[in-house]
Amino acid sequence: MSGNTLGLLFTVTSFGESHGAGIGCVVDGCPPGMDLSVEDIQAELDRRKPGTSRHVTQRKEPDTVEILSGIYEGKTTGTPIALLIRNQDQRSQDYGKIVETFRPGHADYTYWHKYGIRDPRGGGRSSARETAVRVGAGAIAKKWLREKYGIQIRGYMSQLGEIAIPFKSWDEVSGNAFFAPNAEIVPQLEDYMDAIRKERDSVGAQITVVAENVPVGLGEPVYDRLDAEIAYAMMNINAVKGVEIGAGFESIAQKGSVHCDELTPTGFASNHAGGILGGISTGQDIVVNLAVKPTSSIAQERHSIDKEGNPVLMATTGRHDPCVGIRATPIAEAMLALVLIDHALRHRAQCGDVKVDTPRIPAKRI
Amino acid sequence: MSGNTLGLLFTVTSFGESHGAGIGCVVDGCPPGMDLSVEDIQAELDRRKPGTSRHVTQRKEPDTVEILSGIYEGKTTGTPIALLIRNQDQRSQDYGKIVETFRPGHADYTYWHKYGIRDPRGGGRSSARETAVRVGAGAIAKKWLREKYGIQIRGYMSQLGEIAIPFKSWDEVSGNAFFAPNAEIVPQLEDYMDAIRKERDSVGAQITVVAENVPVGLGEPVYDRLDAEIAYAMMNINAVKGVEIGAGFESIAQKGSVHCDELTPTGFASNHAGGILGGISTGQDIVVNLAVKPTSSIAQERHSIDKEGNPVLMATTGRHDPCVGIRATPIAEAMLALVLIDHALRHRAQCGDVKVDTPRIPAKRI
Amino acid sequence: MSGNTLGLLFTVTSFGESHGAGIGCVVDGCPPGMDLSVEDIQAELDRRKPGTSRHVTQRKEPDTVEILSGIYEGKTTGTPIALLIRNQDQRSQDYGKIVETFRPGHADYTYWHKYGIRDPRGGGRSSARETAVRVGAGAIAKKWLREKYGIQIRGYMSQLGEIAIPFKSWDEVSGNAFFAPNAEIVPQLEDYMDAIRKERDSVGAQITVVAENVPVGLGEPVYDRLDAEIAYAMMNINAVKGVEIGAGFESIAQKGSVHCDELTPTGFASNHAGGILGGISTGQDIVVNLAVKPTSSIAQERHSIDKEGNPVLMATTGRHDPCVGIRATPIAEAMLALVLIDHALRHRAQCGDVKVDTPRIPAKRI
Amino acid sequence: MSGNTLGLLFTVTSFGESHGAGIGCVVDGCPPGMDLSVEDIQAELDRRKPGTSRHVTQRKEPDTVEILSGIYEGKTTGTPIALLIRNQDQRSQDYGKIVETFRPGHADYTYWHKYGIRDPRGGGRSSARETAVRVGAGAIAKKWLREKYGIQIRGYMSQLGEIAIPFKSWDEVSGNAFFAPNAEIVPQLEDYMDAIRKERDSVGAQITVVAENVPVGLGEPVYDRLDAEIAYAMMNINAVKGVEIGAGFESIAQKGSVHCDELTPTGFASNHAGGILGGISTGQDIVVNLAVKPTSSIAQERHSIDKEGNPVLMATTGRHDPCVGIRATPIAEAMLALVLIDHALRHRAQCGDVKVDTPRIPAKRI
Repeated sequence: MSGNTLGLLFTVTSFGESHGAGIGCVVDGCPPGMDLSVEDIQAELDRRKPGTSRHVTQRKEPDTVEILSGIYEGKTTGTPIALLIRNQDQRSQDYGKIVETFRPGHADYTYWHKYGIRDPRGGGRSSARETAVRVGAGAIAKKWLREKYGIQIRGYMSQLGEIAIPFKSWDEVSGNAFFAPNAEIVPQLEDYMDAIRKERDSVGAQITVVAENVPVGLGEPVYDRLDAEIAYAMMNINAVKGVEIGAGFESIAQKGSVHCDELTPTGFASNHAGGILGGISTGQDIVVNLAVKPTSSIAQERHSIDKEGNPVLMATTGRHDPCVGIRATPIAEAMLALVLIDHALRHRAQCGDVKVDTPRIPAKRI
Repeated sequence: MSGNTLGLLFTVTSFGESHGAGIGCVVDGCPPGMDLSVEDIQAELDRRKPGTSRHVTQRKEPDTVEILSGIYEGKTTGTPIALLIRNQDQRSQDYGKIVETFRPGHADYTYWHKYGIRDPRGGGRSSARETAVRVGAGAIAKKWLREKYGIQIRGYMSQLGEIAIPFKSWDEVSGNAFFAPNAEIVPQLEDYMDAIRKERDSVGAQITVVAENVPVGLGEPVYDRLDAEIAYAMMNINAVKGVEIGAGFESIAQKGSVHCDELTPTGFASNHAGGILGGISTGQDIVVNLAVKPTSSIAQERHSIDKEGNPVLMATTGRHDPCVGIRATPIAEAMLALVLIDHALRHRAQCGDVKVDTPRIPAKRI
Repeated sequence: MSGNTLGLLFTVTSFGESHGAGIGCVVDGCPPGMDLSVEDIQAELDRRKPGTSRHVTQRKEPDTVEILSGIYEGKTTGTPIALLIRNQDQRSQDYGKIVETFRPGHADYTYWHKYGIRDPRGGGRSSARETAVRVGAGAIAKKWLREKYGIQIRGYMSQLGEIAIPFKSWDEVSGNAFFAPNAEIVPQLEDYMDAIRKERDSVGAQITVVAENVPVGLGEPVYDRLDAEIAYAMMNINAVKGVEIGAGFESIAQKGSVHCDELTPTGFASNHAGGILGGISTGQDIVVNLAVKPTSSIAQERHSIDKEGNPVLMATTGRHDPCVGIRATPIAEAMLALVLIDHALRHRAQCGDVKVDTPRIPAKRI
Repeated sequence: MSGNTLGLLFTVTSFGESHGAGIGCVVDGCPPGMDLSVEDIQAELDRRKPGTSRHVTQRKEPDTVEILSGIYEGKTTGTPIALLIRNQDQRSQDYGKIVETFRPGHADYTYWHKYGIRDPRGGGRSSARETAVRVGAGAIAKKWLREKYGIQIRGYMSQLGEIAIPFKSWDEVSGNAFFAPNAEIVPQLEDYMDAIRKERDSVGAQITVVAENVPVGLGEPVYDRLDAEIAYAMMNINAVKGVEIGAGFESIAQKGSVHCDELTPTGFASNHAGGILGGISTGQDIVVNLAVKPTSSIAQERHSIDKEGNPVLMATTGRHDPCVGIRATPIAEAMLALVLIDHALRHRAQCGDVKVDTPRIPAKRI
């Protein structure tokens, strides 16, 4: 396969281009008998969709999803669930001029050399538009994990450019366009983004995702470690350049006596491990940080080359997110959900269902 | 499969425990007709093997490899290459006391809950001893990549605990036990490690791995992105808690006008991308950093629990690396080689062989 | 994954139910740069579609296919090609009565026990309607194999119930509703089928599929043998109960001196092997027979049970093929094409492209 | 991967050549906590090993297996179980002369063209010697299926060359070298084989394998149908040219009113389906027939060519089975066990564990 399928047992096979007929996916391996409606999926898609604030792309896409298969009388049947989102706001003419040149920081150059052909309309397959289908598939995974094990997966923006965003409360995340867990800081973020846009520049961000109430025992220990699968999933999100679990890069300068989480009869005493030891979930919160690079599409003139290797100057106009990190939170949540459900099913295969009396050690942040 | 196979087309299936009969792997998918000798593999294993300095574990393992299959008259035949390394220095008695308790920071707790049974001898399957087979398999991958495409994969320690190690020269890496690219700093590193050992503590490290002369076009663009596969591979190394490509976590605070590498007729003007755009190699150096946590086995008394949940105090004695990062460099190189060969073969499958006239833009560090 | 994806490198992920919104698939791994139009695919679908003669089901389905992705300006781009066929002639009311009972010979009983839920509308996912998407995907595979290697894949009906159909000419296959390679025998086949329908019964058939001009060297030798993959593919077609390659079941009573094909400087002297030795193509014709069971849906009363285990008598009325084998030829061709393209890509991955000067020994039937 | 791994969740990765250091495999995904000893595996290997009668090859191989990993204190731990069988009776000199020529009916020709190199010693990787590791892995699968679900898998020879062998009793299978379920016919079989050997010829055979007490619900319905996976597994056995399930090729001439098994409150009224409907097990006996071709290695002179395409005459001397079907029964049983355990685990993953109160309809032969 050519890298468009995610997962081993709960698989998502994705298709579609930014300005083609539409995007979609086939979700295979979903356990049968779960209630599932279009609304369950649409609700998550609405969190990611464009045009919801002035800080994101103004492309008008309602991202209305159709379930093509796999549901009978409101329940999953165990057969493939196909999702289709028709593209509405294609503007192929916006992109005609870039066919002959490679936008810096984009996949244009690499697609061209790999395939000898590329769909230049809005980045074609390389557009972050594809991430909508992950959010759709992730909604199914999230629902099953919540109903079956009580797992809760949530994310937030923990840094925007140079501004660290202190965590205050989960309740504040949904009240702003940034997924910031801290309402007080939102005006500062808005001013910052307004300035970035005025400079015709873009900026990076850090997203933090947390899974709570995960049973002990998910993850394969040697090559499909839960943390490795999470790193893979997150780095598969467009623009992500780094992933860390728990203490992450801080571990480098830590001593073992500090990093290594002690166990007590009532739980772990800390969570530097980020909820994973030896590649397997510990029952603590799984905590993941991802670094999202600044959007490559900026309206400043930049040096590049055309297909023949001639130098060109190009500014990328059009409708772009000045910080792709802003809409990344629901995507990161979806990816984490997709990894966890896959490993929940893998666990059932080899070891039987998760024991209900397995300790789930209370969430403790580092 | 239960997570012991790496790769899609060039696969490594690993087996073995720290104190069982031995460890080994089956390498499947190697192209036929390549010269391959035991020495090719042994040379890489010797770089990783224990007991080479006072700063690593004193377990005596020559790590002598036997090739069981797949070679005829000194050449690969296209059939599976099985490698076997017999364990020599098993000391099962060292570990008897830990059967009933969970060592903090180790996989004991998670294995027990996942499988209901665990091999406690030296950590069993969760021991970093398993990484020797990756180095063995990686030696085969490295050789093919070098002979076929001229790819060179090298790594070094870029930070030890609190000490950043400035890169000076590749030539200095092999002259010290730390894989430090800077001979001047080695005495400082030795003093630091001596102090750590004296404190009966351990410390983390950062490893940097670089692949040079990679053709443009390797990597699948959406879910098996080259960077995602690298993140997966690196996070599958015991003790790794974070991975970044190119600018990595620095991207968060960067502007697009800074991060985004411009193209010129003679190459990219910078390499914040770390050699990968849109999940596909650009021809620049692939640059990866990994954060290695401090060894969890330390000789200080730590709080833990036993299987019944009773509190215990335990110090982990025995032969352990005070910094597992010290021996991590050859492992990280091997993992990068395994990812690259897998994607080189995947590229051939879909797009035919890499074109020889594809530009390989001269290596430029960030 | 839950068994809805076919292939390793050229993958088909299928979705859809007989009386849901539609059926479709995602084809991943198609080499880039091939001309591909809707007509290329529609032409093959039209060969399989229902309602083309009185000997097949009278369901009215034009099977009009839409390409949702993966094509740019008439060429494949290397990204997933999604196909969608909307269902037109759903008659859910026809099937309402069978929800509580298990039709003999159908998957009703097994789906119910496996999933605890089933979509009863026309057999839901278990309907042979799903095979349309294989024909669609197979059209892409066939085209690539033909253009790249000159491979030609054709099939015909070699037996209908008790009537053996002697092969006369490929030219006669398309001139009748049975895919019989012998126009003379067609009136006899028609009378036979008319009688079967009058008896409200059904009958089995044998299909023969042949691939000509296959390069030497396709197939993996031990577990993914080309013949094993073909057997898997064919047995995955609804109603197929047996598969044989070359001499097949006749081999049992053969002597080695008879079966074993001698080689001469101008080619093999016979083709009992059916074009495959040691799991790898020999360059001769690949010859496959498949046994298709009689349609289980017949209008005679049959004993069965309901969900509670009570005995019931049921006749399956509705629109059914009295011989599912009649429409099986294009499906079997598609499955063979899908196996061959997958192995052509696998061959490229490990061994590089097929050598153009490799002998392709002239087709010789047994 | 290059076709040396079998299965999705319970995987067998095989290695080794006929006259190399040895053969072996890595079994991954075995559920933890099962008692497993060397004797469990050796007992099955002894049923297949060479030299047990004058009707099979006289190569002296004790096929002594070593378990290298995955067992702790006599129990499986959930980690990979590696098996190693050292070759004892290598006679490389026997094969030296055949390097330059292609033995008719063997994989010599195809390996040479695929890989450009081949290990000629006893057929190298293409030797049926590799099947020993399947029997070893199958022993583990059989044990788990028996202990967990009470599944019993047994096979017998149902035809030797022209002699059909009527089934009399399972008890008679182990009492003769042919795995014939009928002691009376054994003298006839022995005379037949003696005559074949005297003619310096070989002959084919048919093997029948039966799985009893299989739960309802195993198998994926569309592309990984249980029957398709069985066909794949059986056709992967060297020399197998045909596979049928239940009525198999007899279905062609059957009417639906005859073939289609009626259901009654006490079970199915017949078993033409061979225990599988819609790709999923019905709870009846799974019944599989396989056609084994005559051994290609015969001591008569045969026409062939050498690497340069020149005609040669060659007789294959050495130690060969005059009917490879004779030792095929344990291999076919192992392959069926490997398919069933893989699907048992896949069932658990998606649908949870098999319900204990699911009906297992009493075995009824056709």
